[in-house]
Amino acid sequence: MWDAIWTGGTIATMQGNGVGLIEAGAVAAKDGRIAWIGPAAALPAPATTLARAVHDTTGTLVTPGLVDCHTHLVFGGDRIGEFRAALGGATRREIAEAGGGILATMRATRAASEEALLDSARARLRCLMAEGVTTVEIKSGYGLDRDTELRMLRVARRLGREEGIRVVTSFLGAHSLPPEYAGRAEEFITFLADEVLPEAVAEGLADMCDGGIEGLSIPREAMLRLYAKAAALGLPLRGHTDQYRDVDGAAGLAGIGARSADHLEYANEAGIRAMAEAGTVAVLLPGSTLFLREAERPPVALLRKHGVRMALATNCNPGSSPTRSPLLVLALACTMFRLTPEEALRGYTAEAARVLGREGEIGTLAEGYAADLAVWNVTDPAELCYWLGGNPLSQVVRAGRA
Amino acid sequence: MWDAIWTGGTIATMQGNGVGLIEAGAVAAKDGRIAWIGPAAALPAPATTLARAVHDTTGTLVTPGLVDCHTHLVFGGDRIGEFRAALGGATRREIAEAGGGILATMRATRAASEEALLDSARARLRCLMAEGVTTVEIKSGYGLDRDTELRMLRVARRLGREEGIRVVTSFLGAHSLPPEYAGRAEEFITFLADEVLPEAVAEGLADMCDGGIEGLSIPREAMLRLYAKAAALGLPLRGHTDQYRDVDGAAGLAGIGARSADHLEYANEAGIRAMAEAGTVAVLLPGSTLFLREAERPPVALLRKHGVRMALATNCNPGSSPTRSPLLVLALACTMFRLTPEEALRGYTAEAARVLGREGEIGTLAEGYAADLAVWNVTDPAELCYWLGGNPLSQVVRAGRA
Repeated sequence: MWDAIWTGGTIATMQGNGVGLIEAGAVAAKDGRIAWIGPAAALPAPATTLARAVHDTTGTLVTPGLVDCHTHLVFGGDRIGEFRAALGGATRREIAEAGGGILATMRATRAASEEALLDSARARLRCLMAEGVTTVEIKSGYGLDRDTELRMLRVARRLGREEGIRVVTSFLGAHSLPPEYAGRAEEFITFLADEVLPEAVAEGLADMCDGGIEGLSIPREAMLRLYAKAAALGLPLRGHTDQYRDVDGAAGLAGIGARSADHLEYANEAGIRAMAEAGTVAVLLPGSTLFLREAERPPVALLRKHGVRMALATNCNPGSSPTRSPLLVLALACTMFRLTPEEALRGYTAEAARVLGREGEIGTLAEGYAADLAVWNVTDPAELCYWLGGNPLSQVVRAGRA
Repeated sequence: MWDAIWTGGTIATMQGNGVGLIEAGAVAAKDGRIAWIGPAAALPAPATTLARAVHDTTGTLVTPGLVDCHTHLVFGGDRIGEFRAALGGATRREIAEAGGGILATMRATRAASEEALLDSARARLRCLMAEGVTTVEIKSGYGLDRDTELRMLRVARRLGREEGIRVVTSFLGAHSLPPEYAGRAEEFITFLADEVLPEAVAEGLADMCDGGIEGLSIPREAMLRLYAKAAALGLPLRGHTDQYRDVDGAAGLAGIGARSADHLEYANEAGIRAMAEAGTVAVLLPGSTLFLREAERPPVALLRKHGVRMALATNCNPGSSPTRSPLLVLALACTMFRLTPEEALRGYTAEAARVLGREGEIGTLAEGYAADLAVWNVTDPAELCYWLGGNPLSQVVRAGRA
């Protein structure tokens, strides 16, 4: 006997390369996994005889629970002062010189207790969950020291346990150069590689290693040295790159076999070709494009041409993307980046799962996968990308539990 | 004895020209109106002795209930097919030639029963109400015939009664030229002026007359003839203009004393000066700008220079702004149009009330005004404009009732 079945609605399974629609479909869960999926008419017996709980999904759309594969959800403070300054015309450089930017959040995060970080991140996480997110990636990177980096990752793990949501963590200790290492980026990377990253791994706090090839305060060679150490510790790699100018970062990340290269507004074609060959996923983050008033769009046509998979995420963070709505990201990906609704929906499910290395477990509805579902009061999948605002989520199911 | 009091929080009263903050404030309601407002410390006695219900708003922000002064909330069908076509590169003209545009919604709306229109509009209205809207303007304009125009306005009135929200209606019969009047715009306007508009007014269905000077299918002189008739019937005027090119519509609407001119991306300075002299409010609609991928922004600097008041609204409609989030509009107004958070908040409250001719009743918190409040889990008013997504609404109060 199955634990529960959802039957009658359209199911977007994400099987294959489109959204894999099953009309009048049924999906059954047992022990947290999908035990059966197909057209309701093909069920071996009446649903009520097959499962303890029967949910009528007629007139709705069932998708995999959304996977938000790029967030900086844990941080102290906010950056509303910078938001005001930027509206008045201040540039990123001017804001940084006035003590803003990542280092402002670093100070607020270092000063925040574990409980304070947990509470503020929980409120943001619940915004994502209210729109169907069942798996979320959370990065460190606002500590830039041992204790705060580890504290952020512990908060991420606690969020997963306490909110009953799947959390995948990324160590982003090299997010920026902290003031105590000013002018000593190589030493900072050595410190991260020798002292912080190994401890994060030893405590089971880091699932991936994130970083960036962006011409910021961490030189490329130093960053690659940290990536090499992370790989030696068994961590999958990913990175921010080519967001503000072409730094040939797409090729750089593909070259180290990164699971994803994120942002990519200025990525060049050779880099995109390299990503295709390496199987590196492009993570597109339209919330940042909107919030930062960026003119450049990611090279979607080139990504399609070379067959690079595209994922989407909120990039929720206080400085460049205070974005708490996956549905808004779906809409922006279409409206601003001209993804098709099908590409956008795959980008928040199947392709995002691939970024997290969980493509055999989540992001797709198929037998044996996690029974993580979102049930929406829409009939056409494109409707999830069409509206700006509003929330048609009807039910969310995590590991088979509604 | 007052009916209720909200005490302890920051209150953004919108009195004066800013947001009129009162720290640690209190606002009391009696018989649906504000009976007292000021610093809690100035209350004449302990709150519990003054009101039957005491709401502790410590740590929150209290604003006027939001006023959405420009919506096309009542319509049949959707335009998701056009959304897909536009993503693929189709122009507005190509979509119209393929049977899309306003006339597609006209066909779906004509075919929809009053109950069907009510149900679909109710769902959209509830999205707005969930983000603190307590007054909404709703236009006709997808009937372009007698029966459907009147049906739309009746639905708007029923929404107000059934949902317990303040609804202000606008007659927009001249939204476009229906196919049965192709090539006969003058006759269509005569039909509206002689047969439809007077009936809408006689039935008490129209609070304002909306229209447009936009070089669309209704010539300017014909539109002005309808406006003259509306004015003779006692209706305040407003209009869509200068959205896609400069048609000198700002001056045209100011010239007839319109309460508002809406869109205005291409408005010229002489028109803006005329608006200032006439007291015509600029209604800015960033949801359309985003959804239509428009490059041009409204001339905010010129509006400020000449002292034209700026209001904001969702412009919720199926073709150019499927926007159901006032909070997103606040954020877009800042991020895309560079309004200050204070301008944006006034635009959704005090200035929007002015567009609806209710500036002495709603949109400001002062004694004698309606006790329409929104209580938000934020402390800085700018936070309502900073986040993209998420909903910090804690409580909404309509006519003193929480």
